[in-house]
This record gives sequence, C-alpha cells and structure tokens, in this order.
Amino acid sequence: MKCKVCRGPALAGFPAHNANFCAEHLDQFFLRQVEKTIRRYQMLQPGERVLVAVSGGKDSLTVADVLDRLGYAVRGVHVDLGIDDNGFSSESTALCREFFTARGLPLEIYSLKERFGRSIKDVGRRFNRFCSICGMTKRHVMNARAVEQGLDALATGHNLDDLSAALFANLMRWDRRYLAKGLPSLPPEGGFCRKIKPLALLSEKEIATYAAVRDIRMVTATCPYSREAKFKRYKELLAAVEHQSPGTKRSFYEGYVKTASVFQVGGQAAPALGPCAVCGMPTTVEVCTFCKLWRST
Amino acid sequence: MKCKVCRGPALAGFPAHNANFCAEHLDQFFLRQVEKTIRRYQMLQPGERVLVAVSGGKDSLTVADVLDRLGYAVRGVHVDLGIDDNGFSSESTALCREFFTARGLPLEIYSLKERFGRSIKDVGRRFNRFCSICGMTKRHVMNARAVEQGLDALATGHNLDDLSAALFANLMRWDRRYLAKGLPSLPPEGGFCRKIKPLALLSEKEIATYAAVRDIRMVTATCPYSREAKFKRYKELLAAVEHQSPGTKRSFYEGYVKTASVFQVGGQAAPALGPCAVCGMPTTVEVCTFCKLWRST
Repeated sequence: MKCKVCRGPALAGFPAHNANFCAEHLDQFFLRQVEKTIRRYQMLQPGERVLVAVSGGKDSLTVADVLDRLGYAVRGVHVDLGIDDNGFSSESTALCREFFTARGLPLEIYSLKERFGRSIKDVGRRFNRFCSICGMTKRHVMNARAVEQGLDALATGHNLDDLSAALFANLMRWDRRYLAKGLPSLPPEGGFCRKIKPLALLSEKEIATYAAVRDIRMVTATCPYSREAKFKRYKELLAAVEHQSPGTKRSFYEGYVKTASVFQVGGQAAPALGPCAVCGMPTTVEVCTFCKLWRST
Repeated sequence: MKCKVCRGPALAGFPAHNANFCAEHLDQFFLRQVEKTIRRYQMLQPGERVLVAVSGGKDSLTVADVLDRLGYAVRGVHVDLGIDDNGFSSESTALCREFFTARGLPLEIYSLKERFGRSIKDVGRRFNRFCSICGMTKRHVMNARAVEQGLDALATGHNLDDLSAALFANLMRWDRRYLAKGLPSLPPEGGFCRKIKPLALLSEKEIATYAAVRDIRMVTATCPYSREAKFKRYKELLAAVEHQSPGTKRSFYEGYVKTASVFQVGGQAAPALGPCAVCGMPTTVEVCTFCKLWRST
C-alpha cells in the first residue's frame, strides 16, 4: 500500500477517497478537507474567533487542533460533568487541560460540581435520564459561554459517522424539526451563537488517523452511563453500506445538506424565543430548563 | 404461540402488529389491513374497475385475490417476457392463467414474442440492460392496457419491503424526482392511469403467509437475469432494524407518505407530456421509448 502523493509506504487507506496516505500527506489531506468544508458551508471567515467545545475525545480535540493550525483564534470550553465512577471526568478534564496548555491556548473548565454543588451523576440519577440531561446541559453551557464572550462561532466535534447516523435515525421517524437542523453550519439566531461542525465530512477513521499522526492524547475511559444502542445500530448499518460502496455515507450527508431546506416547517410558526428570567439565554418558557435543573434549590 | 383472536394454535407471529394468528384470523386480519390501506390512501371506490398487473409471483396474485374478494371488478394483465432459460416465463404465464381461470376472472396475456417477434432476452442482450428495459416495458404495457380499456386504476403488487428499500435507496441519493413518486397511490395524470399499491403496508412475510393460507400457487423459478444486489442489501439492512424494533419499516414508510409532498420539485417545470406519434401513450419525446425499442424494425 503506497501513499497516493509520494508513493512511499502508506499509513492507512481511505476507500471513500480512493486513496492511501503516508503520515505527512494524510496530515496535508486532512487539513485541506477541513478547510474546504469550512469554506463550502461558510463556517468561518479568516481570523474569526471560535469557541471549541472539548470533551477530551479525539473529535473535539482534533477540531481545536485543526482550527488553530488554520489560523483561527481558538478558545476552549470543557464541561466537567463530575462522572467519576471510572475516572471518566477527571481523565477528560486533565487531557483537555494538557492539550490547551501545550498549545498556549485559553481553556475554561466549567465544573458543574463547583458551580452548583451537584454533578450530572446526582441530577441524572434523580431523573434517570442521564444522556438527555447531559446533552441539554452541555449545549446550554457551550452556547452561553460563546455568547457571553462575544465570539463568532461555536465549534463541535460532530463527525460524518455521527451526523449520517443521526440523519438516518431522524429519517426513520420523519421528524421534520430535527431534519431541518442537521446542517453542518447553523447561522446565529435569537440569542444562539453560530454553530459549526468542521469535521462534518470526515469519518471517524480519518479523524482517528489524523489524531494519531498528530499525537493527540485522548480520553480512553467511556462514560459509564452512555446508552446509545439504537444510534450505534444505525452506525453499523451505514458502515455496512459504506463498506459495499465507499463514499456513500458522505454523499448521503452532502445530498441531505442540499435538500434540507425542504424540511423547514412552513406556515406553522416556530415557538417564540425570549430571554430566560434567570440567565438571559434564549428559551421558550420563563425560566430555561438549565436554570430550572441546576439553579433551583 | 396462540392466535390473538381465538386463542387456538397460531400459524405464525407478526411482531410488527404484536400479534400471532391462526389461518382463519390471519385471513381476516390481512383482508382488513388491505381494506384500510385502500381507504386511507383513497385507492379505490366501491365497485371500481381495476387492472391488476400479475407476474406470477405471490405479491401480484395476492393483490388480484384480495381485490376480488373485496368486491372490486378485477381484470388481469400479464406480460410474457419470453425468458425461457429456466422455464421462468412459461411457468409464470401458466400460473397466472390457472389463477384467473379458477376464479372466472378475465386475464390478458401480452406476449412480446408474438407481438414483436422478439423477447426481453433478445432485446436486453443487445443493450445489456435487462432490468431497466424489462421495467420500462412492463410499465408501458400495464398503463397502456389500463388506459385503452378505460379502467379506473392499475394495481401492482409492491409490498412494504420493496417500497421501504426503494425509499431507503432514494434517500441515500436524495433524488427528489423519485422521492416525490414513491407514494402508495398516484392520481391519474396526462395519459397515465391512477396507480395503486394495495399491499404497500404489508410485509413479505405477511403476504407469503396469506398466500399460503389461500393456497395461491406462485412461480418458483427466479429470473436468470435479475441483478438487484444493492436493493437486496438495503432490504437486509431494514430487516435488521425491523428485527430490533418491530414496526419500524412500516412507520418509516407511513412517515414518508405524510412528508412526501416536500419533495415536489417546485418552480422547475416538469417536462411536458404529449402523445407518442406511434402508440398515443404519454411521452416527453416524439416517439416513446417502448415504441422505439419494440416497434422499430
């Protein structure tokens, strides 16, 4: 297996691109792919300031690494969830800190325990809905910090495997509200920061190889509360299609992006957004779910 | 395993309906399901005259059987394709004839060889595109015969497994033209007869069980030219999802039917239809593809 560019020994093959690359040219290829994605979906203008939400996993650290290398002004935010059964949160937090320190980039650690005296573990157990509460909490913190700091965009590590599996799941249910919102770039709107997914067209394997080449250390523990069985199933199904016809996952998602406007629910007015009476972030009710959950006594 | 209705021994289980049935109650259940599908998608009014396109397989013969039992005026049309490598066409034709004779219903055998001196085998081999030529040929003949006889609708045997796999394939490509047309009932339009798929919400297994209960004999040979590898793959993938969550395939297709209007290509005018100079059937060109292929010397 030879590198497509230099014909030296290749590190790995990428059938969707009909190419094998050595470490050096995989690195170049990957950077160029992210750059193209950013331009194509108008994610960032040169020099814009972006908050990267980092979990400590390979995807979000890769986003921070690539955006920094491409010349954007990167800041990080990491939500310390306080899940310590298997060292998940302490390891995640330590790795994020190490990554940002090594690059001399600012990182904010947002500790739920320090701020509210409770962790996701405590709150999630009470309601027995870990994943949805955790997702809501992270989305709220990420957006609030980006808006409060007046940054241009909020970047997350969602990759092609995540996005195409979510798209598949939403198509099985034909949920038009979700189908309208699976785009790689969402413009700022009523108190929400512009949201971008610079790895939207890159697969888990491509990202993992880049992370290995760049020597990015990532969290090895997995969240002990994670239950994404259905989502995982859809990922496996799409992987089977991809194996048969490399490139299908990408063209499936790209085709969706071109078509997504048809899912805008016309006529039916979207629920009106106003500022939360407690934190000022956008909500459809008086006090937002985040404040109700974390700031109530 | 007991019948949901009479608690007697059940013939088979139908997880999507959370029910097992004995032969008698499967028969009742099946008839009621087709009746509901016809009403829900406004396929037929009581007593209307319908042409059923029969191949000799279980699906199309089941459609003819059910529509007859539900009181519609059924006629059949069967295209004899002249594929005789393994007796495929002669067996199919004989079974269709036997079925319609036994019920005293009219059946037209449309033999390509007799009419045009050539079979699908001859024409397909010349162009090396058996499946697409065969599909085009059958669609043309079915529609032409329904229109020429002034019937109310043309019924085909497409089942839930076919339709959801085709939907899946069209979603992978985001082909809006096809996505707008995967409906269980298409109104008559510019020289095309109303097209209905009464088995749209019934699975292959449900249909096979009904056909067994009704003692419907069907063709056992398979077409030696069939190459539907990709389509089969999508069927397998959906079967895996269905196995995990019974009923998913049906809700996927039902959800699509509710949403399909968003895929109508607005603005962009559909190509204008006019009568073919040779046969008078609708076409976008002067002489339709069917006449070019079969009626040219």
